[in-house]
Amino acid sequence: MTIEKALVVGTGLIGTSAALALREMDVTVYLSDIDPPTAGLAAELGAGREWDGETVDLAVLAVPPHLIGQRLADLQKRGVARAYTDVASVKAGPIADAERLGCDPGSYVPGHPLAGRERSGPAAARADLFLGRPWALCPGPGTDAGALGLARELVSLCGAEAVTVDPAEHDAAVALVSHAPHVAASAVAARLAGAGGVALGLAGQGLRDVTRIAAGDPLLWRSILAGNARPVAAVLDEIAADLAAAASALRSGDPDGVTDLLRRGVHGHGRIPGKHGGPVRDYAVVQVVLRDGPGQLARVFDAAGLAEINIEDVRLEHSTGQPLGVAELSVRPEDADRLAGTLRFHGWHVPPVPGRNPAGPAKP
Amino acid sequence: MTIEKALVVGTGLIGTSAALALREMDVTVYLSDIDPPTAGLAAELGAGREWDGETVDLAVLAVPPHLIGQRLADLQKRGVARAYTDVASVKAGPIADAERLGCDPGSYVPGHPLAGRERSGPAAARADLFLGRPWALCPGPGTDAGALGLARELVSLCGAEAVTVDPAEHDAAVALVSHAPHVAASAVAARLAGAGGVALGLAGQGLRDVTRIAAGDPLLWRSILAGNARPVAAVLDEIAADLAAAASALRSGDPDGVTDLLRRGVHGHGRIPGKHGGPVRDYAVVQVVLRDGPGQLARVFDAAGLAEINIEDVRLEHSTGQPLGVAELSVRPEDADRLAGTLRFHGWHVPPVPGRNPAGPAKP
Repeated sequence: MTIEKALVVGTGLIGTSAALALREMDVTVYLSDIDPPTAGLAAELGAGREWDGETVDLAVLAVPPHLIGQRLADLQKRGVARAYTDVASVKAGPIADAERLGCDPGSYVPGHPLAGRERSGPAAARADLFLGRPWALCPGPGTDAGALGLARELVSLCGAEAVTVDPAEHDAAVALVSHAPHVAASAVAARLAGAGGVALGLAGQGLRDVTRIAAGDPLLWRSILAGNARPVAAVLDEIAADLAAAASALRSGDPDGVTDLLRRGVHGHGRIPGKHGGPVRDYAVVQVVLRDGPGQLARVFDAAGLAEINIEDVRLEHSTGQPLGVAELSVRPEDADRLAGTLRFHGWHVPPVPGRNPAGPAKP
Repeated sequence: MTIEKALVVGTGLIGTSAALALREMDVTVYLSDIDPPTAGLAAELGAGREWDGETVDLAVLAVPPHLIGQRLADLQKRGVARAYTDVASVKAGPIADAERLGCDPGSYVPGHPLAGRERSGPAAARADLFLGRPWALCPGPGTDAGALGLARELVSLCGAEAVTVDPAEHDAAVALVSHAPHVAASAVAARLAGAGGVALGLAGQGLRDVTRIAAGDPLLWRSILAGNARPVAAVLDEIAADLAAAASALRSGDPDGVTDLLRRGVHGHGRIPGKHGGPVRDYAVVQVVLRDGPGQLARVFDAAGLAEINIEDVRLEHSTGQPLGVAELSVRPEDADRLAGTLRFHGWHVPPVPGRNPAGPAKP
């Protein structure tokens, strides 16, 4: 039994991305969203067609965590699919909701793809969002083998790696790498609520990065944290203790008491894998000076294309109206020297490629 | 008296960027670094010429904070410049060091440009790094008007905005917006030092952003924190208290006790000004689907250039070998609809511009 027809319930970033991935594999995909224009946009983007109640092989619930149980119960009651999975970022809570509501445990495979973007909504969706990313599956003792097989097939069709994990272990892990960091970012950002204009005027990129996720919807996050309360609380207590100890060391004139925390931070940061499983920042950056502004960039891309070098990312560093700009081109490390040489050959000023030195702080 | 000749001591990111800015204004710039190849690279990049001991109008000390006082004393003893300034991110400490070492307070104007980048070193320097950014100046009661005038001229030549601020107020402000956030990022990252493979495998972009600055050099940061101990400790205590309270609320089954912190975080985050003084994310993003990969991007830039639309930033979203890619073009909001129309006219698929909706979390 394979997935020929799928239903995606909730066409936000994750649901639409899964739909796009399934469409690329020629699966028939139906789309449903509590907000019909959102499902319509996803359909317009090629994610599938709007749902009219057809039965499917697999239903993917991409709605907020606290709605999973109820939505699952509704769909199961209507016999919509042979198997059901969800993509919520906590697992114990939705599983408990499903049990409480009398859902059929046999056809439900709780899941959580570990992928995301800075933007949300269907327009930000990408067919390759899950490529090479882990996708947690938390089947229970009563899960049917057939349902598990369909969930695994979904993961495979999306190009992700299935990781079977106990729901409690999953929730402890995401408390550490996602939920507690969110609260910590909120606590740093909360200090700015009463900050004066001088302080805010001195803010830089480092602060923006630390606090970026604090912009998340408080009600969505309240729901996530409520669903993972004890594991998150345990991590928050440890962070709070480290910060209180650092404050105490600084106040008592013992700055060396902070060095160990800073060192552990460097070590811990270095253990975070990169987007595609490799180390963080696995591209080399080639800088090229564009004296005539962004218009020159077209020729840079032409030159790279002729040399058959794939530019993985590009950042333009210039200010409006300035004649001088720098483009930073991210390429595979083995292509960096060749790209630099090509661009120099065509007359551009290319500073020496600094190699893969780790990025330092934005500015102390 | 104006700046005709300047000396930059320390050719890292900040020093070299100031040198480049001065060179663009036809100031003669001499470069010095404790590591001569670093000064040589800065010279090669057009930041000036290596220093042979010439006297100058203004010397810019771009060395770590704890070295400012000693370096200032050395240079003043040799009568190298008419005026001296520094760019250290703490001010009270270097000022106290200078006093202790008997430096001439008349010719020294403590300073701190609020600008930075994710990369460090001279190759990452940019002439326009300081454009539109605040640049704190902390003259004391004994500072000569002539020296202050030269420091203000430096700020102006770099395109920055001089902000005269008391050293204590400066240090409290940077504790809030830079130093305490760094320690908080370290504390989050430190939790990963002992994390298991499952947890690390589930890490996403949000965690990378929160912890990015934790990669900073522990010894440099120990020096910065030591130089600003009490203001940093005060902020850290508040963050620690918020996190402990959040943990307690979650543990006692009161998730609403966290909602207020999350809301304050959203509010505080929203108060951070953008890179050029505007609000964060003051550009609209136009997405364009590139079916033939990065080679098409050249034609996108050509089309934008013909329409006289300035692309402020661009991100390529594709995976190696994938035929489908999406380019996200950041433009001024008033240009977004015109760019979308232009690109559609040329046959590209451009999803509806979502407007300036705030970016949500990478993924809950």
